[in-house]
Amino acid sequence: MADKTVLIVYAHQSPKSFNCAAKDAAVKTLTDQGCKVLVSDLYAMKFRAVATADDVKGKLKNPEHSLYNEETGLACKEGRLSDDIKEEHRKVEQADLIIFQFPLYWFSVPAIMKGWIDRVMTQGFAYSLQNLYDNGMFKNKKAMLSFTTGGMESMYLPDGLNGDINVALRPLQNGVLRFCGFQVLAPQIFWSPAHTPADARVALLEAWKTRLQGLLNEKPLSFAPTELFELNFQAGFRLRADVKEEFASKPYGLTTAHHLGKPLPPNNQTKAE
Amino acid sequence: MADKTVLIVYAHQSPKSFNCAAKDAAVKTLTDQGCKVLVSDLYAMKFRAVATADDVKGKLKNPEHSLYNEETGLACKEGRLSDDIKEEHRKVEQADLIIFQFPLYWFSVPAIMKGWIDRVMTQGFAYSLQNLYDNGMFKNKKAMLSFTTGGMESMYLPDGLNGDINVALRPLQNGVLRFCGFQVLAPQIFWSPAHTPADARVALLEAWKTRLQGLLNEKPLSFAPTELFELNFQAGFRLRADVKEEFASKPYGLTTAHHLGKPLPPNNQTKAE
Repeated sequence: MADKTVLIVYAHQSPKSFNCAAKDAAVKTLTDQGCKVLVSDLYAMKFRAVATADDVKGKLKNPEHSLYNEETGLACKEGRLSDDIKEEHRKVEQADLIIFQFPLYWFSVPAIMKGWIDRVMTQGFAYSLQNLYDNGMFKNKKAMLSFTTGGMESMYLPDGLNGDINVALRPLQNGVLRFCGFQVLAPQIFWSPAHTPADARVALLEAWKTRLQGLLNEKPLSFAPTELFELNFQAGFRLRADVKEEFASKPYGLTTAHHLGKPLPPNNQTKAE
Repeated sequence: MADKTVLIVYAHQSPKSFNCAAKDAAVKTLTDQGCKVLVSDLYAMKFRAVATADDVKGKLKNPEHSLYNEETGLACKEGRLSDDIKEEHRKVEQADLIIFQFPLYWFSVPAIMKGWIDRVMTQGFAYSLQNLYDNGMFKNKKAMLSFTTGGMESMYLPDGLNGDINVALRPLQNGVLRFCGFQVLAPQIFWSPAHTPADARVALLEAWKTRLQGLLNEKPLSFAPTELFELNFQAGFRLRADVKEEFASKPYGLTTAHHLGKPLPPNNQTKAE
C-alpha cells in the first residue's frame, strides 16, 4: 500500500471518543505501511456545514434565484469556489481511498459531515450527468464508512427493531459514494462502544487495525452494473428490457444488492490490486 | 382542521424557488382552513447546523469527554439547552403536524435540516429508551417529508438507476420520524421542478394545495408494529419468535414495509380523525 494516499474525513468533538481512537488507529496503521494520510478533522476545522451562495466568489449567474448546484458547478469550472471547498477538493483529488469516520446520528452522518458532502461533492468535480455510478468521476478511487452506533448490533438486523443497517446506509453508500463512482468498501461498524467494557473496546480497535492492514486490497461491494440501465432521458434511466428478467434473479438483483450493496460472489470478483 | 397547529421546517435560500412556493402554498392553504401555522425558515434564521457542546449552558457533566446526546439530554431536563433549541422545542410541542420542506440533497435533507434534526430531536425530549416507535414521545403528532428532486421520477423507481426512493427515505421516515413516534404521512414528492415547464409547475402546486386540504385526515403510513418485537436487551430487540413466520408474509413484512413504510391495506386502516 506504499505510495497510496488516504483521506480520513473525521467528525467527533472529543479527543477521548472511540471515534477519535478509531481515527488515530487508522492514521498510525496506514502511515506505518507507507501510506500518506490526510485528515479533515471537521469540528477542529470549524468546517462550515451549510451550503449557501457564500460558497461562490464573484458574481452569481442568477442572483435573483440561485440554485446551489448550478452556481457552484459554474464556480468550480471557473475557479471561483470558496477556499475551504478548494482545499477539500485538493485532498479528494490526491486520495486513493477516503474513510468517513463518525458517530451515527439518526441513521446517517452528523450534520457537519453532511455539510462536507453537500459542499465538497460539487457538480462537475464529483459528478455530472455523463459521469455517474460505474462511469463516475471517482471510479479509480475507493471510499468507505466507519462509524459507531448507539444501539446494539441486534437492533440493526433485518428482524431487529431498527431494521437492516444496510438499508439505512443505502443513501450514503449508493446515493453518495457509488453515485460519484467510488468503489465502496464494506462499512466498518463499531457497535455501541459507549456501552462496551474497556477490554472489548480494545478488541474492537485491534480488529480494525488488522483490517486496515489489508484494506486497500479488499474487494469492493457490488452494485447493479450501470450498463444494465438505459442511460437516456427518453427511456427514463430504467432497467433495460432485455436484461430485466435475468437481472432480477442475480445476487445484485433489484430487491437485494441493487439496494444494499453486497460483496461480489466468488466467481465474479474483480482482480485484487 | 381548525384549532390544529402545523410547523413547517423549511430549508431553501431562494424566495423564488419551487420549495418556497410549496411552503407558501402550505402556509396559505392551512391558514385558510383555520390552522395556526408556524414556520422555521432555517436559512433565514441562520440556524446553526452543527451539534456541539455549545448547545449546553453551564457546566458539562463530563467536560473531558462530552457525548452530545448525554450532555444535551441532561441539559434538556435541567432547562440548560441553548435558546435556539428551546425555541424549536416550543414549536414542536405546539405542533399537531410537522412538514419538512426541502430540496433533496444527496438522497437526504440538506445539512442545515440535518442539523435541525441532530440538535432539536433531543434525548428526553424526542425519544428515550422507553419511548420509541409506536410508544414514541410524539405518537399523537404527525409528520411528513415534502421535497423536490433534481432527477426525474423514473430514476427513483425500483428498476430505475437510483433505485427505489422509498428505500432512500427509510432513514428519515423510519429512523427519525417514526423513531420519535410520529405518525408518518406519505411523502409529497415534486419530481424535478427545475426541469419542468411553467404550466406543469403550476399544476404540481395545485395538486399540493388540493392534498393540503385533506392532509390532517390522511391515513398515516404503516410500519411493523413495535409490539411484534422483544423490547429488552436480553432478547436484543428482535422480532418475537411467536410472530416471526406470520409476520414475514404480512404487508408490513420484513422485506417490504418494515423497511419502506407502506399505506395500510384497506381492511386494516386506522380510523381517520
